[in-house]
Amino acid sequence: MEMSPIATAILKVIRRSRKPLSKADLVKMTSFSLATVNEHTEFLLRSELVVETERGPSTGGRKPILLTFNAELGFIVAIDLESTHVRVGIVDLNSRILTSESSKDIDVSLGPSAVLEKIKAIVYKLMEQLGVTSHQIKGIGMGVPGPVRYSAGITTSLAIMPGWENYEVNQFWSRHFDCPCFVDNNVHTMALAEQAVNADSEHANIIYVKIGNGIGASIICNGRLYRGSTEYAGGIGHINIGHDKLCYCGNRGCLEADAGGRAIAARAEHLAQSGQSEFLRRLLEEKNKLTLADVRKAVVESDPVAVELMRECGNVIGDVLAGLVNFFNPSLVYIGGAVSGVGDVLLASIRQSIYQHSLPLATRSLAIQHLSLGESAGLIGAGMLAAEEIIYGHDVIKRIASVQNIAGER
Amino acid sequence: MEMSPIATAILKVIRRSRKPLSKADLVKMTSFSLATVNEHTEFLLRSELVVETERGPSTGGRKPILLTFNAELGFIVAIDLESTHVRVGIVDLNSRILTSESSKDIDVSLGPSAVLEKIKAIVYKLMEQLGVTSHQIKGIGMGVPGPVRYSAGITTSLAIMPGWENYEVNQFWSRHFDCPCFVDNNVHTMALAEQAVNADSEHANIIYVKIGNGIGASIICNGRLYRGSTEYAGGIGHINIGHDKLCYCGNRGCLEADAGGRAIAARAEHLAQSGQSEFLRRLLEEKNKLTLADVRKAVVESDPVAVELMRECGNVIGDVLAGLVNFFNPSLVYIGGAVSGVGDVLLASIRQSIYQHSLPLATRSLAIQHLSLGESAGLIGAGMLAAEEIIYGHDVIKRIASVQNIAGER
Repeated sequence: MEMSPIATAILKVIRRSRKPLSKADLVKMTSFSLATVNEHTEFLLRSELVVETERGPSTGGRKPILLTFNAELGFIVAIDLESTHVRVGIVDLNSRILTSESSKDIDVSLGPSAVLEKIKAIVYKLMEQLGVTSHQIKGIGMGVPGPVRYSAGITTSLAIMPGWENYEVNQFWSRHFDCPCFVDNNVHTMALAEQAVNADSEHANIIYVKIGNGIGASIICNGRLYRGSTEYAGGIGHINIGHDKLCYCGNRGCLEADAGGRAIAARAEHLAQSGQSEFLRRLLEEKNKLTLADVRKAVVESDPVAVELMRECGNVIGDVLAGLVNFFNPSLVYIGGAVSGVGDVLLASIRQSIYQHSLPLATRSLAIQHLSLGESAGLIGAGMLAAEEIIYGHDVIKRIASVQNIAGER
Repeated sequence: MEMSPIATAILKVIRRSRKPLSKADLVKMTSFSLATVNEHTEFLLRSELVVETERGPSTGGRKPILLTFNAELGFIVAIDLESTHVRVGIVDLNSRILTSESSKDIDVSLGPSAVLEKIKAIVYKLMEQLGVTSHQIKGIGMGVPGPVRYSAGITTSLAIMPGWENYEVNQFWSRHFDCPCFVDNNVHTMALAEQAVNADSEHANIIYVKIGNGIGASIICNGRLYRGSTEYAGGIGHINIGHDKLCYCGNRGCLEADAGGRAIAARAEHLAQSGQSEFLRRLLEEKNKLTLADVRKAVVESDPVAVELMRECGNVIGDVLAGLVNFFNPSLVYIGGAVSGVGDVLLASIRQSIYQHSLPLATRSLAIQHLSLGESAGLIGAGMLAAEEIIYGHDVIKRIASVQNIAGER
């Protein structure tokens, strides 16, 4: 028993709508006939993918039945893995977070087995708290801090993630859960979440930039996530900007070796040791090591050396983005990730460089702004990724709908 | 009388096919029923957009009727304008060149009126030679050496084309011809022609790079030309590469101010004047001015200084492309334009830089090659642009088909 393309199209309209829809609404929004809408909504109601809500206002006769997507039909495990912390959540089929937990007791460089076992323990804990059995988990969505062969569910890894090269993350989860698993670079999951929040926007061509320890981008082209020919699109962290620092990838001159979070912390330590910043020097003395959080502290306290450091990084990142704006001509550039939270000076200097080094023709109507979702974007996006793949996948009826109500019919 | 979407879909299949098709072929290729194919091919035959050719081999019964696109139903004027020369042609609806003429007696910097009047004279001459009346011209396709607001038919101009800013090129032609005119950046027309030649290829994500006096790119994303949010995508000539030469756009550091054809000629003159190249010095003495053709001569004669100049330019262009490959992850990068014809050293050094500065993940299956079409790519593409817009436009029946046969029916 498979969903027909027409039922899927109607389901998409119902799911995307911010309010419950009548059949008359659906006729208007899909251009299908009322008979077609009747036939397929009946199917969707029996499958429980769609449920009736309160009746709408009467337009003379009986109040019309209103339909809405049944986001409670199943649960999704959402995982947002960063290099030194993880967020895990149980979400509904709209990726609304039902419960979640963060852990900093994680380090991707320890390899996939150790990391995934820890995450699994958190997943089981959250399931128990929520009273959810593994049978009710319909899918797993996971973001990882590096490139992924998405179609295969395999991390392709850079040196930042030793042991993850060609690791079949989806195979790990399928040993523990009888549901599909979808693994993606977490810059893409972040972008998916933002796209969903801004679904009504008219921006069709967008570059999402995530500046964390690494720097990556996600490309929305004609309204859809663009993955590239070998699913590596957006790998801007290793664009050569001409400096001579060695990057962990083996090349010299990579963007993230100069302006990524790890590089910023290292540069701050250098500024502390050389005594250029008294503020950073004192912090280093206290803690023996500086992190991005320390740089943020210094920026908040208006330490001029730290502010200048962030301005430099913003300019460097902005110069690279200026080139990409000339090339791709987006209408929006979104800036997110941990480094973007350090202070407004970064965004300001990124903007300055883009407007300086892109042609006016390309920036005529370009907006450059912070992400609207906060830290949970990656988690929500991971849940959304899995939910969409399952709901619009060919075996949705088998996977999550109430088979017993439909089997044998039609 | 408009074409139905189904008739258009069938027409596309017939037009793209390299050989005539039977109705049985069409059923197989479109998944429409035989009744649907019968109904709509009958319509296409009456409109003369499709004609019967010789009958195919019998499979037992009568030999089947074979259908093919009627490319002779009308003529297209194709124009490929470069900064100092133009190619003009009359082509059929498959953009096969019927007659053409090149002229070097042109200079875009003289402004649109002077240039377009000269082109018009060539158009009329070619029409007379071919015995074509202006009533038989069904469309005009024109490529120009700079950015265009394609949807409006307006050149947006850079300083290289004074007087062309916001010039309505399509309005000029509509004063002389009663048919639609389509104007595009000539890097896009070049890409369209190449795409058509390679229609069977599996490459869906491609960067076409044109290195002439300016440097521009055309992006094929998921199999289709991507124009960007303000129709400026591909403007890579003004990506900042960090040198301090002033570009005509007003910025310093632009790629084409260092490695475009004009820059290469200027650098060659400098190498001649400083005596670094004896070969170039002698040429300059003879001619008082060096052009790209002189640099080509020096490279062909293996003048090491000229070869080194081209290698440097290739590396600089390759470094920019390496970043775009990391970002866009295409499976093909095509190199074309006058500079690419100077010698193989350019392509070799572009390749070297891309492979050196892109991550292996992005270049795993990347091919970097010369365009397969020669100098006429821009002309063929301009004709193709207009032909496709007209054939698949909503008023094709009114524009080119035999209205008298169809009017009033159905």
